[in-house]
This record gives sequence, C-alpha cells and structure tokens, in this order.
Amino acid sequence: MGRKPRSCGLDFPAAANISHAINTATDCGFGFVCIPLAHPNLRRCANDQSVPVEKSKWMRTDLVLGANDWQVRVIPRVSSWLDLDSPNEGFRKRSEEVFHQELAYAHHLGIKGVLMDLRRRQNNNLARHLLSKLSSETSSYFRDEVWLQIPTSSRKIAASSCRNDVPEDDDEDKDDPWHWWDDLRLLCASNMRLKVALEVTADLPSEEKLSRWFGEPIEVLVVPTALFMTNKAGYPTLSKAHQRFIQKCAAREMTVLVTGGNRHASLRHYVQYINHLFQSAELPPHIQCNLGFEDNLQVPLQPLADHLESFTYETFEKDPVKYTEYGNAVYEALIDRVPESEKETNTQVVMVVGAGRGPLVTQTIHAARKANRKIRVYAVEKNPNAVVTLLDLKKVDWGDIVMVVHCDMRKWKAPEKCDILVSELLGSFGDNELSPECLDGAQVFLKDDGISIPESYRSYVQPIMSMRLYNETRELKICDKPYYYKFEQTYVVAQTNSYWIAPRQQLFEFIHPNRNEVIDNTRFKKLKFIASEDSTLYGFTGYFDTTLYKDVMLSIVPDTYSRGMFSWFPLYIPIMEPISLKKGDPIELLFWRRRDETKVWYEWCVQRPTTTGIHNINGRSGTIGL
Amino acid sequence: MGRKPRSCGLDFPAAANISHAINTATDCGFGFVCIPLAHPNLRRCANDQSVPVEKSKWMRTDLVLGANDWQVRVIPRVSSWLDLDSPNEGFRKRSEEVFHQELAYAHHLGIKGVLMDLRRRQNNNLARHLLSKLSSETSSYFRDEVWLQIPTSSRKIAASSCRNDVPEDDDEDKDDPWHWWDDLRLLCASNMRLKVALEVTADLPSEEKLSRWFGEPIEVLVVPTALFMTNKAGYPTLSKAHQRFIQKCAAREMTVLVTGGNRHASLRHYVQYINHLFQSAELPPHIQCNLGFEDNLQVPLQPLADHLESFTYETFEKDPVKYTEYGNAVYEALIDRVPESEKETNTQVVMVVGAGRGPLVTQTIHAARKANRKIRVYAVEKNPNAVVTLLDLKKVDWGDIVMVVHCDMRKWKAPEKCDILVSELLGSFGDNELSPECLDGAQVFLKDDGISIPESYRSYVQPIMSMRLYNETRELKICDKPYYYKFEQTYVVAQTNSYWIAPRQQLFEFIHPNRNEVIDNTRFKKLKFIASEDSTLYGFTGYFDTTLYKDVMLSIVPDTYSRGMFSWFPLYIPIMEPISLKKGDPIELLFWRRRDETKVWYEWCVQRPTTTGIHNINGRSGTIGL
Repeated sequence: MGRKPRSCGLDFPAAANISHAINTATDCGFGFVCIPLAHPNLRRCANDQSVPVEKSKWMRTDLVLGANDWQVRVIPRVSSWLDLDSPNEGFRKRSEEVFHQELAYAHHLGIKGVLMDLRRRQNNNLARHLLSKLSSETSSYFRDEVWLQIPTSSRKIAASSCRNDVPEDDDEDKDDPWHWWDDLRLLCASNMRLKVALEVTADLPSEEKLSRWFGEPIEVLVVPTALFMTNKAGYPTLSKAHQRFIQKCAAREMTVLVTGGNRHASLRHYVQYINHLFQSAELPPHIQCNLGFEDNLQVPLQPLADHLESFTYETFEKDPVKYTEYGNAVYEALIDRVPESEKETNTQVVMVVGAGRGPLVTQTIHAARKANRKIRVYAVEKNPNAVVTLLDLKKVDWGDIVMVVHCDMRKWKAPEKCDILVSELLGSFGDNELSPECLDGAQVFLKDDGISIPESYRSYVQPIMSMRLYNETRELKICDKPYYYKFEQTYVVAQTNSYWIAPRQQLFEFIHPNRNEVIDNTRFKKLKFIASEDSTLYGFTGYFDTTLYKDVMLSIVPDTYSRGMFSWFPLYIPIMEPISLKKGDPIELLFWRRRDETKVWYEWCVQRPTTTGIHNINGRSGTIGL
Repeated sequence: MGRKPRSCGLDFPAAANISHAINTATDCGFGFVCIPLAHPNLRRCANDQSVPVEKSKWMRTDLVLGANDWQVRVIPRVSSWLDLDSPNEGFRKRSEEVFHQELAYAHHLGIKGVLMDLRRRQNNNLARHLLSKLSSETSSYFRDEVWLQIPTSSRKIAASSCRNDVPEDDDEDKDDPWHWWDDLRLLCASNMRLKVALEVTADLPSEEKLSRWFGEPIEVLVVPTALFMTNKAGYPTLSKAHQRFIQKCAAREMTVLVTGGNRHASLRHYVQYINHLFQSAELPPHIQCNLGFEDNLQVPLQPLADHLESFTYETFEKDPVKYTEYGNAVYEALIDRVPESEKETNTQVVMVVGAGRGPLVTQTIHAARKANRKIRVYAVEKNPNAVVTLLDLKKVDWGDIVMVVHCDMRKWKAPEKCDILVSELLGSFGDNELSPECLDGAQVFLKDDGISIPESYRSYVQPIMSMRLYNETRELKICDKPYYYKFEQTYVVAQTNSYWIAPRQQLFEFIHPNRNEVIDNTRFKKLKFIASEDSTLYGFTGYFDTTLYKDVMLSIVPDTYSRGMFSWFPLYIPIMEPISLKKGDPIELLFWRRRDETKVWYEWCVQRPTTTGIHNINGRSGTIGL
C-alpha cells in the first residue's frame, strides 16, 4: 500500500575517510551517508587571519569523490559547534564566518542540501544569516537547501512529563520544538529552500502535535538506533507508537537517515525494517489516490469555456468508482419512476447533458438493461471533437436508442421533455465548473416531476498549514501579472504536505432542479473555525460531495471519501501572507460566489484573528467563463 | 559519426484504417504514419449549416487509438484542398472554417504538430489564420505546432532550368519556395510553433540556397520515393547530390517522412538506407562537439564575479585538446627560454594565475619534465573552495615545487617575478570573461622579457539567420525585467540551427603582456558584411581563437576549429527584431566594449540595411562584474 522512502542513509558523526564510509553504508543497504563538512582531523582557525591560505585546510578535497557522487551519495552536516546566537561576540562572529564558508563549500560541491541542528527557540541571528544564504543570487533552484534537524520533543518537555510534581504550564508549549522551527521560518519569510529534518525522539508528543509536522516541508526523517527494541528473534523493532508515526510518514516523499551506533546484529536490519514499515503502511483513501501527483499545482479545468481534449476524456473515463455510482443512481431512478407493470409500455426519456465521449450514455444503457426498463437517450454535447466520438459510438455500439445532439445545453430546443437529466459537470469545489448555471439552463426540458442526477452537491473548506503549497504558489513563473495574481487563483492539487488546523465545514449547497421563482446562484457565507493547535495558516483546502440520487453519493471529503475514486483532487485556496495562530484562536473566513453576464468567480478573505484584504475582488485575477 | 533521425515515418495519402496503416508501417521499420485528418470516405459539408450535427462526421473517431498512440504514432495532415487565399470568397470561407475545425481536432487529439502544404508565395490570409491558431490561449507550449511542407525547388524553377530558351531573370528568386516560407513566417512574427517540413525535390537548388534552410526550424524532412534510383543489387539509392544534402541534415535533430509509392522490393529498404545515410554522415568538428547540447541557451559563466563549482571544474578538466595544447605551449616556452647548457642551473618561475583545481599546474610540471628543465610554480587562485583541492594536490602529487596562493591575481604581492605567466581566462568571445583586465593586473609580476601564455586572442562575429535561437531568446521566462532585457544579453549556445549569411570577420584583439603606456581595454569597431543570399537576420554568432605561444593555437571558429575540443560553445548575440536582407545587401554592425569601475559590457547595433537602436546601452541589461 505504501511506498519506499526516497532513500535511506547512514549518519557518520566523524568520518575521516568518505569513500570508506560510503562503502560501509552501501554494504549494509544504505543509499547515502551523512558526514560533517569539516574533516575531523583538521583544527579550525577561521578567525586567524594571519594564515589566509591555511584557513581552507579544514575542508575535505572535492577530489575524493566525483561531482555526481557528491550530489547523490552525500548529505553533509554543518559543524555542530556553531552558535550564531552566542552571547559571546567573538564566538558568534567566528560562527558566522564558518557558517558561510561551509555553505559556500557545499554549494561548490553542487549539493542539494545540508543538515544543520536546531537546538533551541532563540535563533534570530541564525535566521538572518540563513535567509541571506538562501536568497543569494548564486543559489540554484533545486539546490542549496538547508535542512534543519529538529527533535519531535525537547529534552525539557520529556523531563517534565515524567516528573509528576512539575505542573503543566504554558512553558511546555514554548519549549515545543515546532516553535523553534516556526519562529525561524517566519523570520525567513517561509523560504522554499528551508526544510525540516525531523528527528524522532523516544518520547513522542500528542497525536495532534505529531500531525502538525505533516504541514511542514519534511525532507529527512532522522531515526536514532536508540529507539529500537529487540524482538524475540533478535531483530530490531520499534514501539507501536513509533511504528504508527513512521507509517504515517510513508504518505509523503521522504528521505530517511539512521543515526547512532549499531545495537543489533547488522545495520542492514534497520534499513530493512524501515523499508518494511513504509511499504506496509495503510494509506487513507484520499492519500492513496495521490501517489505520483503530490503537491503539483494545476489550474482548474474550464470545460465550459474550453473544449476538453481526448487525453483528458480518456483519463477520467478510467475512474473505477464514479461511473459505477452514476449507473447505480440511474438504475434506482428508473426503478422508482417505472413500476414493474409498466416496464413494457413506459419508455423513459433520459438526457445526458455534457455527454463528452459518452461514458454516462453507456452507463445509462447498462442501468436500463439491468433494471429491465425501456429508455430513449439524448446525448447532448457542445464540443464538436467529442461529438465525433459520440457519433461513432452510436454507429458501432448504441444504435437508434441514442440521439446525438451537437449543442450547448443552455441553448438547445429539445423536441420533448425528459424524465431523467444526467450530468457530470462537477469540479473539485462542486459548483466551480459552473454546473449550477448549466443545469439551470437545461432544466427547462426536464419534466415537472423529473429527476436530476446529481440532485445536489455541497462545497467544504478547511483551514490548512502548508508551507509547501504556499511556496508552490509563490514560486509559479507567471510573468506580466501583478504580484497578487498568483494568490488570487484557486489550484487543483493532491495535498499530502498539509496539516488540517480545524475540522472542515460546509460552505455552499446547490439543489437540482432549482424550482425557486428567482434563480440566484451567487452566495455569501461566513465560517468560523477554531485552531486545534498553535500553527501557521497558509490558506484553505476546498472539497465537495454530491448526492447523485437518494443515497448514492460521491465524495472527495477525506472523512467520507469514495474509496478508489481518482477523478478529483481538492482545491488549494491561498492567502497572500501566512497568519500565526494560537491554539483556540478563531479563524473567520468570508467567502463569496459572484457572477456577471459572462463569468463566475470567488472572492475570499480571513477576518479573524487578523484581517486580510478581500482576495480576487471583482474577479480581477481569476474567473470562470460562462 | 552522425546519428539516427528522431524517427522515420511513412506517408499515407488516404488511409481509411489507421490501425492497419500503423501496422503496415511498423512492419517495415517505420515509427509513425502520416495520414489526413479527414476520413477519405466521408464527404465534407462544412458550409451546410442545416445539418449541424453531421458536420462533424468527416473526422475520424479518436477511439481508434489510445491518446498516447495518437501523440506518438501519428502525424496528421490538414486537408490538401483547402485554399485560404482563394479568390472565390465562398471557397475561401469554407476553407477557413474547415482549417479551424481540423486544427481544433488535432488539438483535441493532443498532437504535437500537423503537416500542411504550402504551394505558392501568396499566403496572406493563411498567415492571419495560422497566427490566430498559434497564438490561441488554449495552445500548449510543446504542442499545437504547424509544419509547413515546402519543396526545396518549385516546379516553375525546375521547368525553366531545363529549357534553355527561357532567360534567367528575377522571377526565379520570386518563385524560390524559401520566399513562400519567409513571407509567411514574417507575417506570423516568427512564431515558435511554426516550423518547416522540407520536401526534397529531384532538382536541388544551389549549395548556398540549400544551406539557407539550415537556418530555418526544420522539423520534418520529406523524402519522396521517386527520388530513389536502383543500385546493381536492386536496392534503392540516391544521387550523390541528394546523399550529400541528407547527410548535412544529420547534424540536426530531424524527423524523416517517406512519401510516395513503393518502387523497390520493400519499403523497409528506404528506412534502412536513410538511417544509414544519417549515421554515416561525417559531421564537421564544430558540430560534432555539439551533439546533445543543441540550441540550448546558457548565460555565460562569470568566473571572476562568481566562484566556479566543483562540477564545472570537473567537466572542463576533461577536455582532451585544450590542456594538451597548453602543455605544448609551456614546453616550447621553456625550451626557448633555457638553453640546453643551463638546464641544471636555470630554474624558471612559472605562475599559473586562476589555477582552479590545478590542471594547468599539472600540465606545466609534465611539460618541464618532458623538456628536462627546472621550474618553480606558483598556483594563484581566488576561489577558496578550489584552493582546498590545490592544497590536497600539492600534498599528494606535486610536492614542494608548487606554492599554493589563495589570492586575487590582481591584488597579489608576489615574492618574486616570473618567467612564464600561464592563464586560462578565456570565454567564448575571447575577452568576455575579463581575461584582459585580469592579466593586466597580473603582468606586474612578469619579468620584462617574460612570456604570457596565451600571448594573444581575437574575437570574431558573423551575421546569422536562426529563427530557432531568436525564439529561444524571446521565450525565456524572465519575469520582472523590461521587454528588451532578453535581447540585450549574450548567450553561450551550441548552434546547429543557423545559416551563416556572410563569412565571419575579426572583431577585437588583445595581446599580453600589454606594454602600452596607457592600458585601455575598451574597443569600438564597425564591420561590414555582404549578404550571400536573400535571408532574414536574427543576430550574430561570436567566436574566438587564441595564440597560446608561437604556433600553438586554440580555436572555436568553424574553419579553424581545434578538432575534438569541447570547452567552449560560441556566443549568440541577438537583435530585437529580425531584418530582411536581399542578396548583396550590406550588413553593417557596430560593436563596443565598454567598462567602468566595477564592470565591463558590450553594446551593439545594426546600421545597414536598416538601423536598430543600440543594444545594451550603458550595460543596462547585461554586464560582466570586475
């Protein structure tokens, strides 16, 4: 079910000979080694300006490995004695100098990222020097990252939790290592090249606090050998709690680093055990369907304004769940509308509006056959390229039972009214591909007692922490647009690197047919969430579910997900600037659905705990064409 | 020496069954088929609005192939009866409608490009509709191309050339099919998705006119079976002239399409013969070193302002020619400076300035050993990361003979003067990595009679037609810069898709040591070229050559290229807008090398036959940091 870690490496706190270290690690099944950038036998004299040449002597020569091996086989560590926030000014300045030297050398080696320990909350001067490096013009896009090694639990918290005489107080949260990271990355403007190397500690924090890390850009999972127990057969094994956490990590792309001495027969067994944990992880259905697509932003399709392409049709037609459920819905509707006694005389008129390349037509015919009811089908489609396929399927498969109509459903003059109106016009956010507007147009040829499949759908939103999605948005290469443009779009994206700050809530609902006297598909709603933990808000996730007919449902909401369905990824709705939250803080979201003659759009803003401006006012950045 | 065509396909002018056509072609070793978009059995009625549904019936259903096969196995052809420039208005409008329908269907299929015939020079309305399609918002970056099939020679020219009574006149050039293309693509603003499918005709135009096609974006080479003769063994073969031309094509990435009936034992023999021609092609040395890097723009390195990286050093150290020639130059210099009688007593001081990771130091030591002369070497390098390597090489290989100095050569206080000053500071344009400025600084520690290796270098420029390089430049995704920025950079790029409009000329020369009283490395020169053929100017190519010592040379100028060397690709120097040229037109280029306290830059413009503004005035877009 799960998948292997990207790679599994072995930590060498003091490797004198790199090639030897790599051979040792490879022999045991590891893919890379982690070593200090500075050679252990050379003393540093960074502050001794009298011997300028010798000052470079501390580094390892790059000739010991080819350039490619440096990049693939080695993750270097910044010297652990550095303290850029030391109260001792001399020591602080020496630390700064060595820090820049070491990072420059890692850049020289062409290395993807370096590891660096974070050991406390106060890192203001480090933050300044980190950001200076990460923002340097010579830095390359997919390189020169810094991975901060942070424990899941600090020693202080661990100590306090086993001494009952210490009262729980606010200090615990202050010493929560997540805050060390959060303070630092906010100072570093959520820089995309700053990532986390999460060190699993013997004592784990609460489930909620552990989950919070999944909203952070975890690049490396550091697993100390000291965590391992020994099972009856003598092999290393982890506690149930540690197993559970590591299996949750398997949903994300991650590198694993084993650290500490060998406490069992062979280091090999640690790799095997961790690979086994990853691969046997049971992933939730909304994650399972993501594999291979994680965190890639896509602009939502606009099937109404643009014609879908052959490849898009082909992909979605393969969904094993969606069309089965549509078939079930049509079956139930036919059974309900035609009593057994009328099955020979009553011919139901079914109109498939937005027929595409015909999967719903085929499902409808199958459902009628299964229900033993007579039907006549109209397949209405506006895309001339898809109509070619429909005409061919009629000729080859369907026969005279199906009428192919090349027309926009909103303008079609139907020759008769129908009993059942079937459509699949839903987007990741339900109404965001303009299903309401299309079906309002099509319902004029639905009989008064006719059935619309779907009969209703609802959108949901949820506040999230996801520095990754925020950065994916910010780093989009969109020229010739104002700075706010990227943050006022919504994006379709498989989200594995985000933390749900509060449970999702329902936003809008649409019901079909819409028999209101005045049809109005604009909406406005204010939602109030409560932050489950101290966290940083980077935007919202949008989902939908739909009732096709009676109890036949489709859902991409995680807690009601239609297992196995892959047609929709959720929406990411960004905000311009991250917002810091304390546990219990209210998060008030205002959300509008607006329209004019030619288009529909959303506007949104956060009003509590701080207020953002209204995003996408008048649809200035993103609209959906009618 | 050469390489295979990207793929070799078979033309089916009227394939009723695509799968069958693909099987036939695959059996004979072809990789794809070319078929008309419209099914041959269906009559078109695009202008009959009374049967709107049926109007789509002419197309083939996309279900006959999977989406991936459509993209890989098929190149479709636009209907050949279309004439968007017909004097008959009804026919013209019908052609427009069908044209848009067919291209929309090709887009629906997700196809990379479609073939379309070009049969005369007058295509103004076609140009408008083409550009409208190519500029459409739904077009994808690497898709939706149109490949115009154009013969190398028109029938009219072929006819006139075999009738002696027809006087040669200007009309010949007017009917040159290259002009059909040139007129059209200029109207289409040199759109990057417009490409050429060049059809080889029985009569070939002059060598010069054939070469001109290599400045055009040839996507497909169309080879009619009618061109083939039969050799003694009964196999197909081409005339020497055709062989020569097709082997020249092998230097470029190209798809081949075989068209026409089978006139030999098996269609397979055509594929085999063409593959053989491509693979056995003898490529000129300046092309040979390009393979795999063609037409990718790179911003030139700035080794003075930035530190080179390990990977860069490693790549260039592998050049099999450059360091051998440096070794030869040092050898000759040592022999010249130290007579045989002094070989035991005279120790020559060699300074390698900009030693990098030491390849010139190693070559110098080898040369001294071979010459049996005594030396003492200083290796001066400013990059602290490279100094680490130098110190290690000194320890492991070189020993006390070498002194490693971590210093900028312009600021170094040398302990003694040297006999030979060795450097490798040259860029693709000779002086563009600021070798003159560096060596002027370093020559203070060269003895009055000392030798600089290199002793001189020269830059060269040449006017080129290359729509490809122009588009690569225009399409660079550079945000937050003014529109002219991209056109005022120079780019390092392996150029296979360009036509030399006139022979190259020397631009600037620099000589070391520079014993002038006032050292001035600014330059200004005006060059005048004469266009060899009607053509379109898209910029200039820059090269250099250098005299290391006496007759030891390195060159990237095509006609004097140092065979096997790969350290430098030439420079592309763009101009903002293409300039149309008639054969014999003067092309006057003004070129400046400018500097201030902190940087050097180039400025350039064309003054004849039309005047462009001066590019990069004051170095507003591109400079080289001192």
